[in-house]
Amino acid sequence: MSVVYERVALIGLGLIASSMAHAMKQWGLAGSIAGHAKTEETRKTALEIGFCDEVFATAAEAAKDADLVVLAVPVGAMGAVAAEISPHLKPGATVTDVGSVKQAVVEAVAPHIPEGVHFIPGHPLAGTEHSGPRSGFATLFQNRWCLLVPTDGVPAEATARLRALWEGMGANVDEMDASHHDLVLAVTSHTPHLIAYTMVGVADHLRRVTESEIIKYSAAGFRDFTRIAASDPTMWRDVFLTNKEATLDILGRFTEELFMLQRAIRMGDGDFLFDYFTRTRAIRRGIIEAGQDTAAPDFGRVKAAK
Amino acid sequence: MSVVYERVALIGLGLIASSMAHAMKQWGLAGSIAGHAKTEETRKTALEIGFCDEVFATAAEAAKDADLVVLAVPVGAMGAVAAEISPHLKPGATVTDVGSVKQAVVEAVAPHIPEGVHFIPGHPLAGTEHSGPRSGFATLFQNRWCLLVPTDGVPAEATARLRALWEGMGANVDEMDASHHDLVLAVTSHTPHLIAYTMVGVADHLRRVTESEIIKYSAAGFRDFTRIAASDPTMWRDVFLTNKEATLDILGRFTEELFMLQRAIRMGDGDFLFDYFTRTRAIRRGIIEAGQDTAAPDFGRVKAAK
Repeated sequence: MSVVYERVALIGLGLIASSMAHAMKQWGLAGSIAGHAKTEETRKTALEIGFCDEVFATAAEAAKDADLVVLAVPVGAMGAVAAEISPHLKPGATVTDVGSVKQAVVEAVAPHIPEGVHFIPGHPLAGTEHSGPRSGFATLFQNRWCLLVPTDGVPAEATARLRALWEGMGANVDEMDASHHDLVLAVTSHTPHLIAYTMVGVADHLRRVTESEIIKYSAAGFRDFTRIAASDPTMWRDVFLTNKEATLDILGRFTEELFMLQRAIRMGDGDFLFDYFTRTRAIRRGIIEAGQDTAAPDFGRVKAAK
Repeated sequence: MSVVYERVALIGLGLIASSMAHAMKQWGLAGSIAGHAKTEETRKTALEIGFCDEVFATAAEAAKDADLVVLAVPVGAMGAVAAEISPHLKPGATVTDVGSVKQAVVEAVAPHIPEGVHFIPGHPLAGTEHSGPRSGFATLFQNRWCLLVPTDGVPAEATARLRALWEGMGANVDEMDASHHDLVLAVTSHTPHLIAYTMVGVADHLRRVTESEIIKYSAAGFRDFTRIAASDPTMWRDVFLTNKEATLDILGRFTEELFMLQRAIRMGDGDFLFDYFTRTRAIRRGIIEAGQDTAAPDFGRVKAAK
């Protein structure tokens, strides 16, 4: 593939940014990659692993001269970073982000984008439960979706170029508006994460069942929840603080639904339970057919040695 | 390894029973394996795959002359099966089961066990989201726990022999009483399954987000829930109907906890969320250290081809 952006600046060097850097290098999509992270340790790690060509102690220095600036910090930090880099952005440059919510990012970042710079918020639906500069890998985005939310007045060519970068990294790209994004993600990501955190929290509090039993016997279902409940706490705090309305809406629906099932258990309504559990099987089949999960039993997990 | 039971009868030939049969054959733990399933198709499949030596149209015929009878039918069907086989059980034989709840099984089955037959309820904490006679495999129980719940008056030798069978199939064995079992499993299995079913149900109902979007964008977290929500509906209906009290207890705690987190989101209490999400990481580490899940990112999933 050929270079899509001559100079890319990654602001924040965690799982997503380091995976982007690995992917851009592997498929020759960027001329050079500059990086910024708050801590010297992370900047050193980026150079040591080699996914950045240069690192800078400030976001402003990293963003200077860049053709594409990627904001890859927690959603709550986006506004401050945008304010800092704003005076240093090159005319004609594109600014994007990889945050998990979009309305709050648009509100926080857009006011700082100068005339002549294109702001195209984005969200790659990819990740693992690991975080930090050592957790990235080039194939993270293969066959995953990246959602772009172009803001008003952005030229179609700028969006097409950013799309080409994501497709070059193996992603499928869709465009939608910010409020629809936030609702869709409340269903497919934010509420599931909150529920997983809650279930793990319940287990943590329960004293009649010792922690050791919960851990030993976790393969009966519980362990599936612990993976997403091990995700980065700062990132997820910011997601819930900034996608409050959609998350509370979906949580309300979830609670109503849970109460119906709880009532069916209490009343011994087996038919209701059976019908409910039969319908939910169809979605799994759809996800496997769409190539968004493996059909292998148990996610194809490899067992730890005894 | 050497033969632990000369003749084993499997009543029900789904995921667990077929996996036991494969494992007993692979490690030479049973002299011969008789099987019973309700449908002729399943009985034929068992012979065709070869995990049973003989199959019978009735549970009574299969159980006759067996040294070990394994009840591997949904929990709600255990009582009727026990009543049917009762007159045909060989003196000195052991009867066990593999149901996911234990108090209800003891109540349903124990009255039918004749003097001189040993009833030792059991529960292997192993499975996948697949079901039926074609879903079994020999290594399902490797490094998984099997919980035994010996009933009053069972000789220690009988329990030791059943333990040897499970250990021969690669499992770790613990003993506990039925009511503690049901509480532990309500936390580590039953409530997580109900919550997963609920979340998938919410997504199914939501019309503003089309099914296609939910499926396409499921890799952002939701898909983890769909795996356990694809489990066998009959089995899970029976679990909730028969472990009602413990499940409702844990569900009550779950709802309280969820409301606290929901309130923190509504009030914008970021510190509460951050602290909560930090604590839940520790349990994941414990599970990985205990060999009950893989440390590989994303469960080590292999991506479906694009």
